[in-house]
Amino acid sequence: MASNAPRTADPAIGESKDALLRLFHDVRGLSVALVAPLSDADASAQSMPDASPAKWHLAHTTWFLEAFVLEGIGHYQPFDARYAFLFNSYYEAKGARLARDARGLLTRPALGAILEWRAHVDAAVARLIDDLPADRRVLVELGCHHEMQHQELLITDMLDLLGRNPLEPALYPVRTGSRPRSTPGWTAHAGGIVRIGHDGDGFAFDCEGPAHDVLLRPFNLSDTLVSNADWADFIADNGYAKAGLWLSDGWAWRQREGIEAPAHWQPEDGWWSSFGLSGRQPLDPQAPVTHISYYEADAYASWAGARLPTEAEWEAAAAGHDASAGNQLDRAGPVAPLGSASLFGDCWQWTASAYLPYPGFRIAEGAVGEFNFKFMSGQMVLRGASCATPRGSARATTRNFFYPHQRWQFTGLRLARDDA
Amino acid sequence: MASNAPRTADPAIGESKDALLRLFHDVRGLSVALVAPLSDADASAQSMPDASPAKWHLAHTTWFLEAFVLEGIGHYQPFDARYAFLFNSYYEAKGARLARDARGLLTRPALGAILEWRAHVDAAVARLIDDLPADRRVLVELGCHHEMQHQELLITDMLDLLGRNPLEPALYPVRTGSRPRSTPGWTAHAGGIVRIGHDGDGFAFDCEGPAHDVLLRPFNLSDTLVSNADWADFIADNGYAKAGLWLSDGWAWRQREGIEAPAHWQPEDGWWSSFGLSGRQPLDPQAPVTHISYYEADAYASWAGARLPTEAEWEAAAAGHDASAGNQLDRAGPVAPLGSASLFGDCWQWTASAYLPYPGFRIAEGAVGEFNFKFMSGQMVLRGASCATPRGSARATTRNFFYPHQRWQFTGLRLARDDA
Amino acid sequence: MASNAPRTADPAIGESKDALLRLFHDVRGLSVALVAPLSDADASAQSMPDASPAKWHLAHTTWFLEAFVLEGIGHYQPFDARYAFLFNSYYEAKGARLARDARGLLTRPALGAILEWRAHVDAAVARLIDDLPADRRVLVELGCHHEMQHQELLITDMLDLLGRNPLEPALYPVRTGSRPRSTPGWTAHAGGIVRIGHDGDGFAFDCEGPAHDVLLRPFNLSDTLVSNADWADFIADNGYAKAGLWLSDGWAWRQREGIEAPAHWQPEDGWWSSFGLSGRQPLDPQAPVTHISYYEADAYASWAGARLPTEAEWEAAAAGHDASAGNQLDRAGPVAPLGSASLFGDCWQWTASAYLPYPGFRIAEGAVGEFNFKFMSGQMVLRGASCATPRGSARATTRNFFYPHQRWQFTGLRLARDDA
Amino acid sequence: MASNAPRTADPAIGESKDALLRLFHDVRGLSVALVAPLSDADASAQSMPDASPAKWHLAHTTWFLEAFVLEGIGHYQPFDARYAFLFNSYYEAKGARLARDARGLLTRPALGAILEWRAHVDAAVARLIDDLPADRRVLVELGCHHEMQHQELLITDMLDLLGRNPLEPALYPVRTGSRPRSTPGWTAHAGGIVRIGHDGDGFAFDCEGPAHDVLLRPFNLSDTLVSNADWADFIADNGYAKAGLWLSDGWAWRQREGIEAPAHWQPEDGWWSSFGLSGRQPLDPQAPVTHISYYEADAYASWAGARLPTEAEWEAAAAGHDASAGNQLDRAGPVAPLGSASLFGDCWQWTASAYLPYPGFRIAEGAVGEFNFKFMSGQMVLRGASCATPRGSARATTRNFFYPHQRWQFTGLRLARDDA
Repeated sequence: MASNAPRTADPAIGESKDALLRLFHDVRGLSVALVAPLSDADASAQSMPDASPAKWHLAHTTWFLEAFVLEGIGHYQPFDARYAFLFNSYYEAKGARLARDARGLLTRPALGAILEWRAHVDAAVARLIDDLPADRRVLVELGCHHEMQHQELLITDMLDLLGRNPLEPALYPVRTGSRPRSTPGWTAHAGGIVRIGHDGDGFAFDCEGPAHDVLLRPFNLSDTLVSNADWADFIADNGYAKAGLWLSDGWAWRQREGIEAPAHWQPEDGWWSSFGLSGRQPLDPQAPVTHISYYEADAYASWAGARLPTEAEWEAAAAGHDASAGNQLDRAGPVAPLGSASLFGDCWQWTASAYLPYPGFRIAEGAVGEFNFKFMSGQMVLRGASCATPRGSARATTRNFFYPHQRWQFTGLRLARDDA
Repeated sequence: MASNAPRTADPAIGESKDALLRLFHDVRGLSVALVAPLSDADASAQSMPDASPAKWHLAHTTWFLEAFVLEGIGHYQPFDARYAFLFNSYYEAKGARLARDARGLLTRPALGAILEWRAHVDAAVARLIDDLPADRRVLVELGCHHEMQHQELLITDMLDLLGRNPLEPALYPVRTGSRPRSTPGWTAHAGGIVRIGHDGDGFAFDCEGPAHDVLLRPFNLSDTLVSNADWADFIADNGYAKAGLWLSDGWAWRQREGIEAPAHWQPEDGWWSSFGLSGRQPLDPQAPVTHISYYEADAYASWAGARLPTEAEWEAAAAGHDASAGNQLDRAGPVAPLGSASLFGDCWQWTASAYLPYPGFRIAEGAVGEFNFKFMSGQMVLRGASCATPRGSARATTRNFFYPHQRWQFTGLRLARDDA
Repeated sequence: MASNAPRTADPAIGESKDALLRLFHDVRGLSVALVAPLSDADASAQSMPDASPAKWHLAHTTWFLEAFVLEGIGHYQPFDARYAFLFNSYYEAKGARLARDARGLLTRPALGAILEWRAHVDAAVARLIDDLPADRRVLVELGCHHEMQHQELLITDMLDLLGRNPLEPALYPVRTGSRPRSTPGWTAHAGGIVRIGHDGDGFAFDCEGPAHDVLLRPFNLSDTLVSNADWADFIADNGYAKAGLWLSDGWAWRQREGIEAPAHWQPEDGWWSSFGLSGRQPLDPQAPVTHISYYEADAYASWAGARLPTEAEWEAAAAGHDASAGNQLDRAGPVAPLGSASLFGDCWQWTASAYLPYPGFRIAEGAVGEFNFKFMSGQMVLRGASCATPRGSARATTRNFFYPHQRWQFTGLRLARDDA
Repeated sequence: MASNAPRTADPAIGESKDALLRLFHDVRGLSVALVAPLSDADASAQSMPDASPAKWHLAHTTWFLEAFVLEGIGHYQPFDARYAFLFNSYYEAKGARLARDARGLLTRPALGAILEWRAHVDAAVARLIDDLPADRRVLVELGCHHEMQHQELLITDMLDLLGRNPLEPALYPVRTGSRPRSTPGWTAHAGGIVRIGHDGDGFAFDCEGPAHDVLLRPFNLSDTLVSNADWADFIADNGYAKAGLWLSDGWAWRQREGIEAPAHWQPEDGWWSSFGLSGRQPLDPQAPVTHISYYEADAYASWAGARLPTEAEWEAAAAGHDASAGNQLDRAGPVAPLGSASLFGDCWQWTASAYLPYPGFRIAEGAVGEFNFKFMSGQMVLRGASCATPRGSARATTRNFFYPHQRWQFTGLRLARDDA
């Protein structure tokens, strides 16, 4: 998921600068906490063009505040005028910038220098909050949610980097704990006209609205996510070798890349291990499968005689669920996924829906409007939230999106089927 | 568009072998007529991996009949057992096949040999029609519609080939004629619950169904296609250089490929010429723009303050229009597009919808079922029909599909907008 | 080998226009004879960027005559002014030209049109020969030798094309015949100061001179070429899998391309077959191995405890041998290699020498001077001549050159070793 | 230059373990001194596949000692058994290893950990020196020379990395100082039979021998290197745009890469600046041009009406010059090139010779023998030494080698011409 433009602000925050500052300090502090286990070198490396260095995430979210919130306010001086070129991501309206795949060459400024910059900007926001006009305060809130998105990317980009190191270093300690096992089953939904999308109550990114009615046929949604044990069955049944299960693009991708299992999986003693945030560990058969592409998710669903839900079905089914109930990112890093029942907090779930604008969607004015619409091509929607999603960032209306071949996020699936 | 699996058969054909044979001979004959202006070399060359040689289209549609209709019927003997490897397109279930991008290396069998093979197969179908079980007769009808799709590809692939030759040879003579100019305007649609998709009356490919209800908001659809004059205005206003109008993938494509106008356009004496089936000609300002990508169509719509219609909107608006009214492919080649009002026959129109299965869609059994679902990834739907679409092949429910960067077909656009 | 600039003219030709015209007609006629078995499609296809269509060779050699010999002579009118763009190869000084890898898209002009052009130019040369100044007559001779080089490329490019066709069509009938088997052995050379390079007596390309002294150590040169049987031993001994035998670039090439045998080889009934000008045939164990890269030749030599000869060693050893003694290209196509003893006529032999200028080499003036020096980078010298080399084109001083990975020519090797 | 196998040992070292240990400590200490200005991130990044991280050079040279010197000696235990996979460069015989272009992903082990490993190994060599058999002691000496080569690469790889950072950080302070300006002129050499190559007196890599006679024609070698001022004249005369000056491969490279000046050059105030080890500085017109490819060197020589010397000519002319006279790498980093007269110490000089084995060359036994011969393909020889070459590493016989397009080293040129 790239960053998103805000649709509406949280009313609590709209009314209170204190609430806004509290959110701001929480979010900004969490980013710094997340990089605590990283060396300067860890934080500077870019594992692939799709990913960014951890340091870059820290810097880009800070540049966002300078460029959209602080610029021209009071007598604010940018910390270093050269940083805009280095840490703008894709805002054409904000000028030229470093090529995306060259981010890993920025060994300078060092991690320490970026942390100094962050402190400079944080202090300025705290100092100037009373001078900010309302539209800038909205941008502070947006900056926080934007940074939460980058917190998740920071985690997954680091995971990708460390997973390419033959030493397979662990980033965070293992957190264990018992969670009740989930019981497989299907929940029926009667279909009909259902309202989805964000209705303007609390913060959301602009692509989550406008709220609108959709017409659904009756369907069933699985109560559980597809588990590692399920996936091992798919592998054992030669699912990766049966061309008839695969989308044409997916089959070509699979052959070109030599894909035969989810990312990070390795056979070990008759079962499988996987590399995760705590290093290489045997896979928990009951935990949800993660690090699969849309192509794999779709092939699995065909194999299972089911299908992926549309995003409207998913959202209709999620109505009433508590988005903050799942295990999610906090200051000691993400919690490893342990169960498979929650709609939120275990993994993002590929849907059958392409990432396209909702009916009535309008592009926001100004550079912030580049946020969303420009990514509405070639990507598929994921719903839910993963163990790497910050607490408070998950919503029933959130539309995450990735290209169908990408799988360095915590991506899994939940099956749907037509009403018999 | 790739080939599609049939959903339902035309009832007239279902009842009458004569009607089926008549269709068969008409379609088979048209293919041969279309290659009359081609040399053996013309018919053997492949201009790019997305395209195929004309000879290959002639051969592949013939292989289809051997593999799906004639195999095992009577004492039918394949004309040449080696051809299956050469002319299978993508049916994994039908065995190994030549790499797609190597089709242009098949200088043998020669065009003449392929025409002999066609005669052999045509005679066998005529001879064995009484022996065919009903499910095979359906496949004859399917083979005809499959071949109609390849007739359009044959034309557009040849156009692409000849357009890469600096000599710019003309394929068919210019056909001129007066058509009433169309009057710009918008037709309002009230929205609400609308039924779209093929309802089982007459032939359709399987992806066109099942028929189902969709919920639409009120919208307006332009009465005319975007014209060459409109497009020249977009260029003159620097539309190709304004990053803010473009999808992110589209902008990257535009920069990488150096795109600054529709395919085949060249500035000439203060206006534009374009290469078409009759060679290079000055552009008719009133004719619909063609040979544009989805990215260009989408950027244009943003520039015009409008949007592309969804496929459901387009189909709702097309209800009641006569799909066979437009100027379309016949034995003397396609008619050049001259007007811009018809929904059918001028050009395929990019929609805002990704090519994905309709609710309730089920994959057909057997190899023929590979037809459709496997392409439901990464492509956008186009509606209507172009001047290169065979008469009788256009339907209001037809879902054509291409990748967003492709533009060697006769692709254009028609604007939509929300109800004010 | 690309084309080469002339160093000196054949004195017989310098004195007699008749001799020149005889050479001209012989060479021009042979090219036409060579394409007799080809269809228009065969002659138009380009199998890979390194190769050119047969039709292109016919056209390019004709363009050469128009551009260098006929231009501005008498009232000569170019046959078609547009052809210069299409059929210039790489002469920067002669203006813009078609991208090399787009030659296979020129389905027009057809083979027949090119043959007409040839007749037009041939007649003009015959008609204007008396009007030609001496420096142009030299260019007629050069054009003939240039065309002989393209005759060999025409053959090998066609072989490459047909070898990629799963039907493996034969180009010329098999020619069988008995040749005395050769007896393995080594011929010693005493070394010392040896004169190599062309001394100005008869035609040569400019890179063959100036003649100059080199200092050689005593060495031995094998009396025979490495045979198919030898090569099968190398394969059986896992020569392709022993990294220690290979140059670093060669090993990377081998792995990337999955090379495990010479081009066109396939295992068949416990032995090997190969595709050649007469289709797929069992390999003659005693015939010289062909279609190997420099990397393979070098690895084989290491495996055999020997080395490749330098070009100076090869030329020193060739002194006194009759360059026209081998089996070579004539009007019925090339003769299949049957023996392994001759220095000329079986295959080109990779040497250990990079293709670089001889001491004292100077670039010829004018566009013709682009001929040679510009290819003196990254290529290795081959000596001898192959079955596809026209009679009369082989010289002891000829320096053929290809990149180390290329193997679509008739390339083999002859071992050398230091004097014990 | 990759690493090289030793031909002969320095006799002083052969006789004295003290001398060997002194060399060892000097070399090992210099490597550590060179990385003093680097952060962990600086030392871990890889700027391009041709380059390696500084940390990798520190580690690889240490692995070399473990693998070739210490393995199996006394009770030596490798510091970390996993490092062999990470830090083997290309020794097939020493087992599998990390892909070259993935070296920049090794953010762990950190720079500090590598320095600990170095201390562990250094202590072991000092402790075990008395237990080492003579052939291992030779390998200690080889390891020192191998490490000197990597010291130069460490410098140039860091320069490449920092040059890609828009902040252009300086690595070492500017060292200024006056050097006498050099006087242009030519030194004649009479040619004849000349002995080149290493004769076994003192250390040399194996490719430097055997010493052998070559026959040279009379030639002149320029007394000075081509200077920045000279190169600016070449640019001003459109040398980069004149196709006729360029090798065919070079012209294609130039166009593909958009090359219009040496690496790091930027126009500034009517003159040029360049990025170097001390950041961006105005170019000294009298200093030798550096960071040019072979293609550029060759084109310049053509433009100047001269040529590059062969390596034999260069070595013949160098006889009697003091290889240690130039300004070279020491503990405070390399000295910036200030003059242009010395054969050694300013820059490596492209020659007209391909990197190929000398007559009589034999591959050394064992894994160390992979050193040299495997790179004898596609590369050109450079002679001399640069400001980044360690003191004591320059020899008149040294053969450095790079691919013709590479220019991240301190590469320049010195002209030669035939005797008039």
